[in-house]
Amino acid sequence: MCLIEQRLLPHCFQIVATPDFRATARAIRQMVVRGAGAIGAAAAYGLAQGARAFRGANLDKFSAHLQIVRQTLQDARPTAVDPVNAMDAVLRATRAGRTVPEQQALALAAAEEFANQDVRHCAAIGRHGEKLIRPGARILTHCNAGWLAFVDIGSATAPLYAAQRAGKKFHVYCDETRPRCQGATLTAWELAGQKISHQIISDNAAGHLMRLGEIDLVIVGADRVLGRTGEAANKIGTYTTAVLARRHGIAFYVAIPLSTIDWKLRSGPAIPIEERDPAEVLGAWGAVRGLAGVSYVRIANPSSGARNPAFDVTPPELITGILTPEGLFKPRDLWKNRFRLGPFPLRRRG
Amino acid sequence: MCLIEQRLLPHCFQIVATPDFRATARAIRQMVVRGAGAIGAAAAYGLAQGARAFRGANLDKFSAHLQIVRQTLQDARPTAVDPVNAMDAVLRATRAGRTVPEQQALALAAAEEFANQDVRHCAAIGRHGEKLIRPGARILTHCNAGWLAFVDIGSATAPLYAAQRAGKKFHVYCDETRPRCQGATLTAWELAGQKISHQIISDNAAGHLMRLGEIDLVIVGADRVLGRTGEAANKIGTYTTAVLARRHGIAFYVAIPLSTIDWKLRSGPAIPIEERDPAEVLGAWGAVRGLAGVSYVRIANPSSGARNPAFDVTPPELITGILTPEGLFKPRDLWKNRFRLGPFPLRRRG
Repeated sequence: MCLIEQRLLPHCFQIVATPDFRATARAIRQMVVRGAGAIGAAAAYGLAQGARAFRGANLDKFSAHLQIVRQTLQDARPTAVDPVNAMDAVLRATRAGRTVPEQQALALAAAEEFANQDVRHCAAIGRHGEKLIRPGARILTHCNAGWLAFVDIGSATAPLYAAQRAGKKFHVYCDETRPRCQGATLTAWELAGQKISHQIISDNAAGHLMRLGEIDLVIVGADRVLGRTGEAANKIGTYTTAVLARRHGIAFYVAIPLSTIDWKLRSGPAIPIEERDPAEVLGAWGAVRGLAGVSYVRIANPSSGARNPAFDVTPPELITGILTPEGLFKPRDLWKNRFRLGPFPLRRRG
Repeated sequence: MCLIEQRLLPHCFQIVATPDFRATARAIRQMVVRGAGAIGAAAAYGLAQGARAFRGANLDKFSAHLQIVRQTLQDARPTAVDPVNAMDAVLRATRAGRTVPEQQALALAAAEEFANQDVRHCAAIGRHGEKLIRPGARILTHCNAGWLAFVDIGSATAPLYAAQRAGKKFHVYCDETRPRCQGATLTAWELAGQKISHQIISDNAAGHLMRLGEIDLVIVGADRVLGRTGEAANKIGTYTTAVLARRHGIAFYVAIPLSTIDWKLRSGPAIPIEERDPAEVLGAWGAVRGLAGVSYVRIANPSSGARNPAFDVTPPELITGILTPEGLFKPRDLWKNRFRLGPFPLRRRG
């Protein structure tokens, strides 16, 4: 599988190949590829890679092998549900095959279909979300839920790209999004490429700008939204942004494809929150004059440690709306719309 | 004047000399020295430097010269009031002299007295603040209001050092405090040196930890507290931390010496908020393997700009208490205690 090496952006653009499912899982874990839809598609194709690598004709052994592949890919980013939903879809499709080669072919076709669905979902989020952006709006976003994070134009960014096509002028504040700085590196790079007016701010500045009345709405993505409760797990700092938005009466939207909805988990505290390497908090990556490529700089005191929870959970009362390919929903209304929104285990037959 | 080159910490410990008041002002502007009490003392000594450099015997010309020196030093960190209060005290003391040499000597003595007063204030903040720290407490602090920021044991850190001397065990979370990362570099370095249990977190993680119930109280410093309203200007992100603390019912204290109180300004929006170089947001400083000293790493997309407000203002309703050398006050009670708290223009004669 070929992936954009996102850790090098915006300093270098490099495509890397993952020859097998273990390499794909490693690419997810190490954040070569990140973002809800992108790791959903990567996991779907990773499962197809794993399926294809199986040698033999025994369907039971093949099935057991697929479970190992699935778990390896799922464990690479435990907080996210897109990989789970994507791989469940692939596994369901696979079962229609009567032989190993048939199932292998079906797995690849289902991965392809997941990726195509992500493209359609991004476009539909853009159509619905564009209406939220008034001319002159000043929009805050956190982390990157852009085209790098999906197969097409992103979730949180889809309304921006659609509004731009509609000829609207607006301004985007990108939270830099420590510790990995996906806002400063990835979102800013995307927006600059699209010539959308934007500025990077330190995560600390969002509250101040809201207090000054300089932010009109917030749009973020998510790694997992609970269909039963409307809780949204997303990049660390999202919860803080939602608390700030609520204090200032600013609308706070979470934009997601349907694959980001988890219909099983019953409550936010059950969402596994990935704790990542403290080195991410203790330093940063970027371009250093005189050195080629991307270097790590240690910022912090060397004898101090760090805690690094990579995600947090925003409760439904802080979310104005969940922006989906099917339109805008109150977070607590997801469940009653589950047969419309739930292509994963809940889809009505017939 | 000799100053610790704080921009190199914790990577190198270096003392730099500022031979004249302009160099001292530059050191404040460039953040060689930062922190309320430290720049208060630096400005007081800078004014004494400026006084000493005057050649001539004309008191009117001397006085006009001092006004230029004062303005140069004040402009170096417009959001802070300690330099203003410190220099006002020096100027008041100076007027008792009948000749230029007498006034020059009085200026130096008054600067010395400001520094000594800061030492006493830090100690008194520690005595009062230590009572706020229960054994086992988990304390969040933002930026650095430690001994590097003052002449002695700091304002926000004074209760920590006092609690440690009292044999209490507790844990400190240091917000890294982007963009300049004073929490990750300076506060963490101080606490490590004092063997106080601590961890650095990204500023984005504070809300998440509060939501998990892992933070018991917040103590920060300030660059200017309005005596009339109880509003507190401090490092960008302080306001966000206060909003989060309020949502979670966590006590939020602002620890300050008396020189941080501004008795003149009537409202928070009148506080000048310094906008600093976007390069601070677009990158970071630290140690890079293979390179000596401290290097700048550009993190952000090169074609993107940044906004960089360096301070924000926290309203009194979010502040549990203002911790002063005279004890703990509700922010709105500062004004009625002004003759007790106000050594600067308001001090009662006799």
